[in-house]
Amino acid sequence: MNGRSPIMQDGLVLSLDQVLARQSFKWRQYSPGVLAACVADMDLGTAPAVRTALAQLLQRVDLTYPLRDGRKADRAVARAFAARMHRLYGWAAEADQALVLPDLVQATFAAVMAFSDPGDGVVVQVPHYAPFREAVEGTGRRLVPLAMRAGADGHYFDFEALERAVDARTRVLILCNPHNPTGRVAIRAELEAVLAFAERHALVVVSDEIHADLVYPGARHLPFASLSAAAAARTVTLNSATKSFNIAGLRCAVAHFGTAALQARFHARVPARLTGAVNNLGIDATVAAWNDGQPWLDAALAHLLAMRDHLAETLRRELPAIRFHVPQGTYLLWMDCAALELGRPAAEFFLQHARVALSPGEVFDAGAPHCARLNFATSRPILDDILERMIAAVRAHQRRPVHA
Amino acid sequence: MNGRSPIMQDGLVLSLDQVLARQSFKWRQYSPGVLAACVADMDLGTAPAVRTALAQLLQRVDLTYPLRDGRKADRAVARAFAARMHRLYGWAAEADQALVLPDLVQATFAAVMAFSDPGDGVVVQVPHYAPFREAVEGTGRRLVPLAMRAGADGHYFDFEALERAVDARTRVLILCNPHNPTGRVAIRAELEAVLAFAERHALVVVSDEIHADLVYPGARHLPFASLSAAAAARTVTLNSATKSFNIAGLRCAVAHFGTAALQARFHARVPARLTGAVNNLGIDATVAAWNDGQPWLDAALAHLLAMRDHLAETLRRELPAIRFHVPQGTYLLWMDCAALELGRPAAEFFLQHARVALSPGEVFDAGAPHCARLNFATSRPILDDILERMIAAVRAHQRRPVHA
Repeated sequence: MNGRSPIMQDGLVLSLDQVLARQSFKWRQYSPGVLAACVADMDLGTAPAVRTALAQLLQRVDLTYPLRDGRKADRAVARAFAARMHRLYGWAAEADQALVLPDLVQATFAAVMAFSDPGDGVVVQVPHYAPFREAVEGTGRRLVPLAMRAGADGHYFDFEALERAVDARTRVLILCNPHNPTGRVAIRAELEAVLAFAERHALVVVSDEIHADLVYPGARHLPFASLSAAAAARTVTLNSATKSFNIAGLRCAVAHFGTAALQARFHARVPARLTGAVNNLGIDATVAAWNDGQPWLDAALAHLLAMRDHLAETLRRELPAIRFHVPQGTYLLWMDCAALELGRPAAEFFLQHARVALSPGEVFDAGAPHCARLNFATSRPILDDILERMIAAVRAHQRRPVHA
Repeated sequence: MNGRSPIMQDGLVLSLDQVLARQSFKWRQYSPGVLAACVADMDLGTAPAVRTALAQLLQRVDLTYPLRDGRKADRAVARAFAARMHRLYGWAAEADQALVLPDLVQATFAAVMAFSDPGDGVVVQVPHYAPFREAVEGTGRRLVPLAMRAGADGHYFDFEALERAVDARTRVLILCNPHNPTGRVAIRAELEAVLAFAERHALVVVSDEIHADLVYPGARHLPFASLSAAAAARTVTLNSATKSFNIAGLRCAVAHFGTAALQARFHARVPARLTGAVNNLGIDATVAAWNDGQPWLDAALAHLLAMRDHLAETLRRELPAIRFHVPQGTYLLWMDCAALELGRPAAEFFLQHARVALSPGEVFDAGAPHCARLNFATSRPILDDILERMIAAVRAHQRRPVHA
């Protein structure tokens, strides 16, 4: 496993044959011949440091109950998280206040259940990652929408509309920053406005920062809890190496509590053992990624930046009716296809006529079937094929006979 | 990874150097030179089918969101579980009623929280696996003890004592069969008595059957839910390949609900996404183990049987004051060392004077510091070294000057 293998070369980006060899949700949920630009993982490998860590565990057949540095193995993830937050953002996150658990959707459910009761309100950005809605409505809470309005150069919070909706039983605000699906990275002033709002309404902030590593030049990620001690005291920060290092299947994530008091409030309702132990491959992969994966991540980001810019240029030139903001973070493009007048949901149109699978806009916002999310974390040849298919499908649609 | 590797040969049993190379909780929690016979994993590798499955995932760098056979990947584990139950026990377990989750302690917490309220009683065998107590007392429930009495040839349920303790607020019975730590495998008549008791008191039975694969000739495992439709209707069966295939670090387990109604009752309190997704390595390893791992498991069981018998013979001959029943299942021996008059907890004595780490009896039963659990899933040389050290320590203790 160290170095080259017959299937997986050391190149950063995978060929179509290589991604099709994966038993991945992204590439195998559609019929053959469909190009997948949906599920948020990358048509890339992962960092050599991660592959080496995994290979070493298999080499030793080291798959029994793990210990790392004389402590429970999950603590190695907590320490690596705290060290990384300090290194990247100057944020003195406490390792002892980090719960290590298998996944962040789980963490969102757990936080909603810990910090609110059935019937309470939970603020969620719209559009939003679909499982946030499940975490709210599936647990009997009410979704209080925080609209992301498309402004001149990105999507902004619409607090005025929110102030009219929030009530005394609103308890939690789920913040996703960098934002999926719009790719917006909030600036400090916006986060401070979120904090002031959260303080005014005594909300716990669940800050999903899983895309924090995936921010392009010109923008900068700020952990919400790093704003101030007051912010930390009401913030659960969710993070994971699985998104930026492309190891979603390894299931290892962190829920960090800004204070021991907030952690104790959480555990009074959700015992630590209820969320389950993390597997030792996920643990070692995460530690390797966070401590030794930066060279690979830098190369991946350079590639993603090139794909983002190529995608934006091509859409502007060839499909100018599609409206979008160039994402400041994430490898996701949120496209408004209303002006194409497709006559059906955008993702449905592109799946049927372009054989390109996008994530349907209505999954992120019931009112946005005219929108779709495009995952551009792929190779230039695959991205070009996706674009050619989309362009051809739109042109054919525009040439169609109109029955008046 | 296929076939030989420089560190890990294809032999069934590991050398001391090989187990020490693992970053395992079992071998690394004590100071160097201590022989570990505590934490319940094995000084063995795992099945070639499991290693091949893992190697293939790494070879393809197939670590993104997984799909298996066109469905969510965890369903492959549910199907393999149902097929195995049918093949081994003729039990028609429904795959759709199996929740796949990272670990069984987690599942125990979840079941206790789903089927009882704070203040309610939960029946737990004594002695018992320590996390059962945490799942009861750590969630504000009351532990109702079901004593396992040492009889002529094993440990039996003491229902008479239990009937005096159980009350109207007792809601759940946690059954561990095969039993950790005594190694007892319950016969049908005993399980039927448990069922009658559960019916009389309207208890949900949480049946931890993680040691089901580890049963020796002369005994036979029966899944509790397979007793009858009435048993299934009140039973959550917990199982996993991690114990018998020695892959505890991979974190993949099943909680099977005997009816859809019981499953719905569970999920009304514990949403499926709260317990978290299972990693794709754990999924593929479990499916490989359950579908293709039997030859390795047979070889492992033959080795464990030889170690069990050697251990029992040696103790009877050399340390006849230690009382024990030969375990019918598990690779664990529950020893009563009271007659040795050690003057301190048995595990403490053997750690200090034999440099052998046993699991302390008081962890399983606060009233049993004179007991200890010995894990015999190791090589003959390591087991002999453990026995020699224990024998020498006891003899030195017996030769000590007695200050009257």
